[in-house]
Amino acid sequence: MEYDVVIIGAGPAGYVAAIRAGQVGLKTAIVEKMYMGGMCLNWGCIPTKAILESAKIFSKIKHADEFGIDGIFEHNISLNWEKVKGRSKRISGRLSSGVSYLLKKNGVDILTGTAKIGADHIVFVDDKKISAKHIIIATGSKPKVSDKSIANAPIIEMEKLFSLEKIPENIVVTGNHISAVEMAQFFKLIGKKVTLVANSDYFLDGLDEFLISYITKMIETEKIGLILKTYPEKFENGELFIGGKKIKCDLLVNCNSRKAIIPESEVPFELTERNFIKTSENFETSIKDVYAIGDVSGKSFLAHLASAHGIYVINHIKGIKSVFDPQNYPINMYTSPEISQVGMTEKEMKAEGLDYKISEFPLSANGKALIEGNTEGFIRMLSDKKYGQVMGVQIVAANATDMIAEASAFMSVDGTVYDVAQTIHAHPTVSEIYMEAGFDAIDKAIHK
Amino acid sequence: MEYDVVIIGAGPAGYVAAIRAGQVGLKTAIVEKMYMGGMCLNWGCIPTKAILESAKIFSKIKHADEFGIDGIFEHNISLNWEKVKGRSKRISGRLSSGVSYLLKKNGVDILTGTAKIGADHIVFVDDKKISAKHIIIATGSKPKVSDKSIANAPIIEMEKLFSLEKIPENIVVTGNHISAVEMAQFFKLIGKKVTLVANSDYFLDGLDEFLISYITKMIETEKIGLILKTYPEKFENGELFIGGKKIKCDLLVNCNSRKAIIPESEVPFELTERNFIKTSENFETSIKDVYAIGDVSGKSFLAHLASAHGIYVINHIKGIKSVFDPQNYPINMYTSPEISQVGMTEKEMKAEGLDYKISEFPLSANGKALIEGNTEGFIRMLSDKKYGQVMGVQIVAANATDMIAEASAFMSVDGTVYDVAQTIHAHPTVSEIYMEAGFDAIDKAIHK
Repeated sequence: MEYDVVIIGAGPAGYVAAIRAGQVGLKTAIVEKMYMGGMCLNWGCIPTKAILESAKIFSKIKHADEFGIDGIFEHNISLNWEKVKGRSKRISGRLSSGVSYLLKKNGVDILTGTAKIGADHIVFVDDKKISAKHIIIATGSKPKVSDKSIANAPIIEMEKLFSLEKIPENIVVTGNHISAVEMAQFFKLIGKKVTLVANSDYFLDGLDEFLISYITKMIETEKIGLILKTYPEKFENGELFIGGKKIKCDLLVNCNSRKAIIPESEVPFELTERNFIKTSENFETSIKDVYAIGDVSGKSFLAHLASAHGIYVINHIKGIKSVFDPQNYPINMYTSPEISQVGMTEKEMKAEGLDYKISEFPLSANGKALIEGNTEGFIRMLSDKKYGQVMGVQIVAANATDMIAEASAFMSVDGTVYDVAQTIHAHPTVSEIYMEAGFDAIDKAIHK
Repeated sequence: MEYDVVIIGAGPAGYVAAIRAGQVGLKTAIVEKMYMGGMCLNWGCIPTKAILESAKIFSKIKHADEFGIDGIFEHNISLNWEKVKGRSKRISGRLSSGVSYLLKKNGVDILTGTAKIGADHIVFVDDKKISAKHIIIATGSKPKVSDKSIANAPIIEMEKLFSLEKIPENIVVTGNHISAVEMAQFFKLIGKKVTLVANSDYFLDGLDEFLISYITKMIETEKIGLILKTYPEKFENGELFIGGKKIKCDLLVNCNSRKAIIPESEVPFELTERNFIKTSENFETSIKDVYAIGDVSGKSFLAHLASAHGIYVINHIKGIKSVFDPQNYPINMYTSPEISQVGMTEKEMKAEGLDYKISEFPLSANGKALIEGNTEGFIRMLSDKKYGQVMGVQIVAANATDMIAEASAFMSVDGTVYDVAQTIHAHPTVSEIYMEAGFDAIDKAIHK
């Protein structure tokens, strides 16, 4: 059997590439050894957001009285982990079936098994042999294992979280990035004692320092222990020894930085310094006609960028030429409140010597935020001082992860603060904070 | 005392004009006979959305079990009208004080009393006399009184709703527009028997027929009685007689179409056919230097357009010339799910002979909607067939009223479906439905 495209890995990079390939008429197969949808659908983006949603609603219900609802008493309600996990699994399952359906609908062959790349456009799937004009590797990544010195600790990775029967009292989350903060807050929201250990020098690297500072304060306010730039030394008698402290630890959740899952190959790939598969600007690896997209390329660890890689590469294979240069991709953190960023950070603007303006507007002055009981947060807009082009937007708000899309919209068409201010925003909506930030950049916000 | 500008009425037209006037250095006074913020802040947009928020949360909490929350039993919880009303009043009060604060901060004099317009740039405020280079009338509107034949019914207007001590069982809402549907659903959400009487031929006039048809079905599904194009004949023994039916009616909420509140004036104004104050394209009335903005001009009954009028007129007075042509203003309905529209309807595109394309994407195929438990709804995008310009967007979604802002953003800069599709949307977010609708317009949605 000869395919135009064989894709290895059915996560958001691979399956989106496969659907797109089917849509544009390429004879396509996708190889997956575990679940359709990959990490994102099965133990990453989707199920973690699902359990966070339960935790957020649980937390909001405790304040139902403020909305005039009688009959709810904090001591009577509880979060049922079995049910929370069950709901999350049902959602993953439904979306995963949806992916299978879409692949089949678009004529993509689904091959279950472990792929190995041979020479001359050959892919082995277990003991089957298929040939492909183009091979796309989308095998993703996994967290680096925890330090050997604490190998005896009760460590789990996200994948295993959804098999846990009970969540114990004292949780340590290790990791430097958004998912670590999200998980730390999840455990806190459901009433656990939580410590977040961010061992590298790059806590929340990529976010604006203003946001990092906000998040650090948020973590402290919520009484989540935060230990920065320190590695745990050892684990003994249920305690983690770290930087002179002893922390009770019944469960250590590994949200560490990630490393590539590189498929076996008869022809070796060139790798990057950090051991991801090295690719050209078109995502082609050192082997001709073999591409790598998503996490395994080390070019991004965001599902939406992985999908964008996938669409780009299929277009490229089909001869639709363009340049992949996603400067304006949102970064979302699904905490409570949510935190989002798109575009340049202040540090990046400084580094490029750009003359910029910061305009801000607080949610506490927004009517709809008050109505929803969600007044914590702000919008912060970075714009070019001379021409007013919007260069970066940061939002902290209950619904920031969706709200950031408006910023992406303006930025994708090189919109200016004048455009933002002149766009009529409905009243009362939280989105009015955009208009206010726009006015603030030009002259003065109305409600500030 | 001579002012540059005297504004009559402190609703969203008047108070925003006043703040803007203060900001640009005009000596300004605002006259208000009742509450700062006008109808919008005191018994319109804000308090109605506040009580709807309580009702929506009440309704969501009933399904808390689905999110894995134990200990909530539908028969144990209830909505406490006193508390709901109280919360709504606190929010209005806080925003109303905020308006006073902003007015003072921007050097605006607040005059309490009823204004009467004299000849030669004079305004009387009760027994005070002030002169103004420019007068702006922003006195708003009120619902038309119900038909005389049912004058004996227990009729209240929204203003009085917030003084009601108890909400009775059988509610009739009269009105043809969004606020009538919102109120009908509010009463239904809190467990009342509700009938909506839309007596005119123009039920939800201005919305796309696709949305009107959706809303009509929604009303029926929710078991809200719906009587279209019929006037009640009489009220007798607690029942409303209408179109051959008898409807129990303990309370009739008047959300009828609105008529202008025209201030007393020594010099008569020219009026429109429908008895609003007639204005030029610059909002100037038939009297030189006297402007009318917001509802009283009959040019819009939306708070955000009223505010836009206000900013425009102040800029105009300051000599900042532009054309007021807000084609792309959102129309929001805060039901559950919310319903929003911006730009042209299909009917309007047909009438202008435009060749258009409709692209759609359902929320049921969106991961985040599934996570939030809000899969009811869709996005519907109307675009120019040849160039792909986005001409209109309609959204039904739990958070449609905020989500519509992204459509406004694209449309305010003449964005195309290509721009929409190429804008990277974060995963998982509900806003991904924009990207899908964009792809759907060009070729094929990924997840459809």
